[in-house]
Amino acid sequence: MTDEALASTIRDRMRTALPATAHAADRALTAASRASVERFHSLLHDYPRRIGKMVRGRLVIHSTQAHGGSTDEPALTVAAALELFQAWVLIHDDIEDGSETRRGSPALHRLAGMPVALNVGDALHVYMWRLLHELLDAPGVDAKAVLDEFGSMISRTAEGQHLDLSFVHEGRFDIGEDAYLEMVTLKTAHYTVASPLKLGALLSGVEPDPALVGAGIDLGVAFQIRDDVLNLRRDTDHSSEYGKEFAGDLYEGKRTLIIAHLMATASKADADEVTRLLSGPRSQRSPTAVTRLLDLIERYGSLRHAQNVADARAASGLERIRSLAATLPGRAAAGRLLAVLEPVAQRLS
Amino acid sequence: MTDEALASTIRDRMRTALPATAHAADRALTAASRASVERFHSLLHDYPRRIGKMVRGRLVIHSTQAHGGSTDEPALTVAAALELFQAWVLIHDDIEDGSETRRGSPALHRLAGMPVALNVGDALHVYMWRLLHELLDAPGVDAKAVLDEFGSMISRTAEGQHLDLSFVHEGRFDIGEDAYLEMVTLKTAHYTVASPLKLGALLSGVEPDPALVGAGIDLGVAFQIRDDVLNLRRDTDHSSEYGKEFAGDLYEGKRTLIIAHLMATASKADADEVTRLLSGPRSQRSPTAVTRLLDLIERYGSLRHAQNVADARAASGLERIRSLAATLPGRAAAGRLLAVLEPVAQRLS
Repeated sequence: MTDEALASTIRDRMRTALPATAHAADRALTAASRASVERFHSLLHDYPRRIGKMVRGRLVIHSTQAHGGSTDEPALTVAAALELFQAWVLIHDDIEDGSETRRGSPALHRLAGMPVALNVGDALHVYMWRLLHELLDAPGVDAKAVLDEFGSMISRTAEGQHLDLSFVHEGRFDIGEDAYLEMVTLKTAHYTVASPLKLGALLSGVEPDPALVGAGIDLGVAFQIRDDVLNLRRDTDHSSEYGKEFAGDLYEGKRTLIIAHLMATASKADADEVTRLLSGPRSQRSPTAVTRLLDLIERYGSLRHAQNVADARAASGLERIRSLAATLPGRAAAGRLLAVLEPVAQRLS
Repeated sequence: MTDEALASTIRDRMRTALPATAHAADRALTAASRASVERFHSLLHDYPRRIGKMVRGRLVIHSTQAHGGSTDEPALTVAAALELFQAWVLIHDDIEDGSETRRGSPALHRLAGMPVALNVGDALHVYMWRLLHELLDAPGVDAKAVLDEFGSMISRTAEGQHLDLSFVHEGRFDIGEDAYLEMVTLKTAHYTVASPLKLGALLSGVEPDPALVGAGIDLGVAFQIRDDVLNLRRDTDHSSEYGKEFAGDLYEGKRTLIIAHLMATASKADADEVTRLLSGPRSQRSPTAVTRLLDLIERYGSLRHAQNVADARAASGLERIRSLAATLPGRAAAGRLLAVLEPVAQRLS
């Protein structure tokens, strides 16, 4: 199955986990309430439709096969649930970060208003668990182990999000590289790579190798830093594949490794200027301010530094995954797993 | 066990379902990240601590015993999970409604900022499911049935919340009594009374009597209308027991049965004035506007009408519960169940 076909299979599974838009048609409701519930159900499908490559879901499928498990219904269920997690967490993140767009379209709270979007995210969260609970009827699956992994994965993600939001709340940009790496490990690396790899093992009835988790965290951290680096490179195709405006992270005042490095290495005067330029809401940030920030990032080599960190973490993670993959029973699937992870480890510089 | 002792037992179980504030102390994090994670964990405990009487949790316990089940660990687990649901949904509702206070203290988003509070609500949502998943290890409990009931209960609550938010988003107050009752059935009645009663049956391995659900919805609707009526009565003790400022619902522009009746019966000119007075953010509503609204509510008998509807629904629900209770194996517990529900059915007028 090609990457596209697999992504499309996962998308179909996500869709069937949600109420159909016309689900409310036969309910004993007044016409106005029925129309409103139908609109609600259609909003549930919005972000799931926007998610493109299903990297996390595909990692679950490949990891399951690589560990000798079957990719029948249970693995597909977990892959779709992980992408539903991604959907609701992005809706809530977009509200928390005041983001304008998501994958080239207005963020859900810009389309439907913040209160409605928040509630849609909560409903998707519930449908994620309802989908996972179908595993309880699947023979031969340790559903409890999968549910426990989801529970701790989401708790960690929320902790990481709290670290990020605390920096924002305190107006701090001098967060230090160590604190940045802790934040992104909790917020992104677990659910993006480490947990998908672990879930594949659990679905195959295998205790996950601790090395798998360490490697997954390396690759997940690299994945996030690459994302932040690509956002500040003019040679990225910002319109299509990447789907985020050039330097959008600077307009949004986002904490990244690039900013952490800049703040740690810049002169006092320059660091103060960076703080001033990045503070306040997005609407106050002019293109001139962003150009000035890009100049400072260039002068202090912060983009280059972030690229180097991403390259090193990716290379380390990939090397460990390669050694592990050689010991796994599903050789062909291990190859597909590596094929998903290798682009993350492609050198940026 | 007294009501207070039972509420306190449920509270202890909620507390142990959440990470202790000092949970992060032994984690390999920089001091700054550790302090931030500890602060996050302490915020998780805020709303659970504010919830007072644990009506919903106590209904689960009494219903379980009334159906012949045991109130050991599993029933307590479900009661605590239901109160954790109440905690996270209140945090998110307060954000969605722009509420200033919750039980006499500032709402969480006023204390910690909206982004942090939203994320705390998400984390509590996860801990609610993690607590429920402990049932999978409990012998003799149909955990899948309990999880399914929680899933459909929360989905319904989100639909009801969407109906409410849609009225707000459209700036509509002329919502009609039928639409109001549909909204409050989905948003409040299921999780407040109907689901707790059903969960007690499921925990006892008994198929819930459909009459139980109908009665629960009657009582749940009555419960909500009473709450709205009490908010507009000067003789309510607004400082302690009730914990919400007098006429706070009018300041917040909340849709209630009182407003639905007023809009449906007022002259065109008066209805237009009501819409004008209730529209816009809370900060634009003066005490003079609220006094004028109270005058109109008095003139059209809308408070009296809402009281009558609440009284009728409560009487009907309670009568059905009484007949059912007489057939249940746990007589003493059925009596305690009725003792929790009877105050809801006390005549308001």
